[in-house]
Amino acid sequence: MNIQEIIAKKRDKLELNKEEIEYFVTNYTNGTISDYQAAALVMAIYINDMNEEETTNLTLAMAHSGDILDLSELGTVVDKHSTGGIGDKVTLILAPIIASFNIPVAKMSGRGLGYTGGTIDKLESIPGYRTNLTIEEFIQNVKKNGISVIGQTLNLAPADKKLYALRDVISATESIPLISSSIMSKKIASGANKIVLDVTCGSGAFMKNIKDAENLASMMKKIGNLANKETVCVITNMEEPLGKAVGNSLEVIEAVEFLKGNMEQDVKEVILELGSYMIKLAGKGQNIEENKQKILENIQNGKAFEKLKKWVSSQGGNISFLENTQNFKKAKYIIPVLAKKSGYVNSLNAQKVGEISMNLGAGRIKKEDIILPEVGIILEKKIGSSVQKGETLAYIHANNEELAKTQAQNLKMVYEIQEKKPELKKNILKVIS
Amino acid sequence: MNIQEIIAKKRDKLELNKEEIEYFVTNYTNGTISDYQAAALVMAIYINDMNEEETTNLTLAMAHSGDILDLSELGTVVDKHSTGGIGDKVTLILAPIIASFNIPVAKMSGRGLGYTGGTIDKLESIPGYRTNLTIEEFIQNVKKNGISVIGQTLNLAPADKKLYALRDVISATESIPLISSSIMSKKIASGANKIVLDVTCGSGAFMKNIKDAENLASMMKKIGNLANKETVCVITNMEEPLGKAVGNSLEVIEAVEFLKGNMEQDVKEVILELGSYMIKLAGKGQNIEENKQKILENIQNGKAFEKLKKWVSSQGGNISFLENTQNFKKAKYIIPVLAKKSGYVNSLNAQKVGEISMNLGAGRIKKEDIILPEVGIILEKKIGSSVQKGETLAYIHANNEELAKTQAQNLKMVYEIQEKKPELKKNILKVIS
Repeated sequence: MNIQEIIAKKRDKLELNKEEIEYFVTNYTNGTISDYQAAALVMAIYINDMNEEETTNLTLAMAHSGDILDLSELGTVVDKHSTGGIGDKVTLILAPIIASFNIPVAKMSGRGLGYTGGTIDKLESIPGYRTNLTIEEFIQNVKKNGISVIGQTLNLAPADKKLYALRDVISATESIPLISSSIMSKKIASGANKIVLDVTCGSGAFMKNIKDAENLASMMKKIGNLANKETVCVITNMEEPLGKAVGNSLEVIEAVEFLKGNMEQDVKEVILELGSYMIKLAGKGQNIEENKQKILENIQNGKAFEKLKKWVSSQGGNISFLENTQNFKKAKYIIPVLAKKSGYVNSLNAQKVGEISMNLGAGRIKKEDIILPEVGIILEKKIGSSVQKGETLAYIHANNEELAKTQAQNLKMVYEIQEKKPELKKNILKVIS
Repeated sequence: MNIQEIIAKKRDKLELNKEEIEYFVTNYTNGTISDYQAAALVMAIYINDMNEEETTNLTLAMAHSGDILDLSELGTVVDKHSTGGIGDKVTLILAPIIASFNIPVAKMSGRGLGYTGGTIDKLESIPGYRTNLTIEEFIQNVKKNGISVIGQTLNLAPADKKLYALRDVISATESIPLISSSIMSKKIASGANKIVLDVTCGSGAFMKNIKDAENLASMMKKIGNLANKETVCVITNMEEPLGKAVGNSLEVIEAVEFLKGNMEQDVKEVILELGSYMIKLAGKGQNIEENKQKILENIQNGKAFEKLKKWVSSQGGNISFLENTQNFKKAKYIIPVLAKKSGYVNSLNAQKVGEISMNLGAGRIKKEDIILPEVGIILEKKIGSSVQKGETLAYIHANNEELAKTQAQNLKMVYEIQEKKPELKKNILKVIS
């Protein structure tokens, strides 16, 4: 077997077998296969596609290219993963809710790059919170408190890291088999038994339309089944940011408020849908509507918020910030964005909001960039909101006055206001269970 | 403009414009664009193809990526190029024939790699022959004697060199736009005004069937026309080696014998066809059949052989070897290959004969390999020959007895003999003029 033959097969639209895919992944990871050979194969895969079996084999080979986290001593672990969005504070809210049902939460999360934020960055805005526990501490925390969320300390799926970076520079990102194998390989390597995927769809997501989102979801579900990891996909709306807050400590505050019962409608629908399927996969409730009620109960009776405090304190975080979110350090300049005219918000492009937040310092342009936890955006008006000329649409939280003003101006341009009330999209577009 | 956008266009089956192609070629040559980005683009071109205009722009951009030889002071120079074959001694014969009509021959030729021999290697088997003249000496020789053939001393089409090497390791060789732009860029850079292409077809050629050969020929003709270089393509048969000799000095001897009037039928047909079109393009005779007669005359009256001697002596070669080919050093072992059974030769795979010749030391496996000028093969029987069991099919010329025996055994296997006389293919399959 050699890489030229493998490239030639995919170039000629033939199916690659398990051995060929494993040969490629192993030898690309160890450097025997060069970047230019991998680039040729990846482009051939992009253009000529891969079927379910090939994509599953690619996923498994990438998952096994590095460490595999063994969570078997914890019982059934249900993981949740989002394909990326703006204002996505779902993990911060859902992890303690799930743990409050005595379902173990043992999660490795990532940092943000580009306009999408990372859960680890958000958690680090809580003073004292340690994201770099050892694997032993991590497992012990889950055993003791039922929950732990840390950064990616292990060498998970290094083949995916190399391929992901390569795809970016050769225009081979938007490919269903390549995206789905990338996501699923990391999930499998991080030890989950069952997986609920939040497949985002819209201006702030990788998948811009429902058809692409369905294709991606259905491929990932098939990979999950073939890899013996039961998988449910929930396609959610990402035309505008999720909730009101975009930025690190601002999103933590919104998550805390949610668990105290102050729930934004869009966040609530997404949390209830994803959470109910996680409970179902964990074997703690077959009926989705009943599960939603149980989640609301555990918010109202304070169990979920108690679990959040337990979780954060056990990882060194100062929970006085959770008990009183006024304690969080505020940005130096908080300036309103005012409506130019009256009408209804018709569009609020999520990617553009994400870019403004990144420009303010809430996200990274390059890997090395340092994040400012306190900066970001609070959206007072969202799609469908009625506004009066001069009314506050949003607040910019910034540490630099000049930057605050230019980004406020930019955000004003992102708000499209028209006379007619727009038809609202559903927050939950489809469930593939 | 950036390379990612250019890759994405070709990936999505869109046409690349002149500026995009020039941007790629310039920046790949100077190293700004990486090999992996070039690999992705090349694979996208292989799969999604390029039209005539794109291929012409690629050709011209590659031609202008390095030196361009200026032959304008010589008048109309007609170049001849073969897409590669076994036993191909056409340049050795045709160059002096053409020069004997006072048509200037100013040719840069290549060395062999793999099972295909190179004209420069063959010429170097003539003791004293210098292939590394300066450009000034080269031009002066053409002005004085009407002919000179040297190695590629200039930095001709460096973009093609890089792309050619890359294509080889990423399984992207057999692509019409990539092959044709590679050949034509070198021809344009080497200064020819008009071009006759010998497009070989069959087991010893890049193009295995007539349809592919026609596609390649027609693309190269279109590029020639769009680049303002009148081009004629002659598709010739390369199912078996051309002529009797395969090997360096052995082919020189066959070429000398040809010019002395001892012509093998297949070589004769190819020489007459290519030569007649070269004369026509040079404006020295519109009628192809008449041109063929004129070529035969210049062989019979000795003018072509005189031109050969003039050419070789002016580049330092010892012409006593041409006057008496018995002077050439002989291989240590010359052993016959005997027929296992009686019948007709049905097949004599040219590539396999080329590989045996290479194994004997007549060709290079790696660039650094040193060639043995005297080794090779003389084919006494060719496709259609009638043979008796025990009769000599061919002679192996080798410097090592063990090697001679094993390669004789290999060659015996290449000769397919059957009872029925096979139908013979034409030597000239098609002319696209």
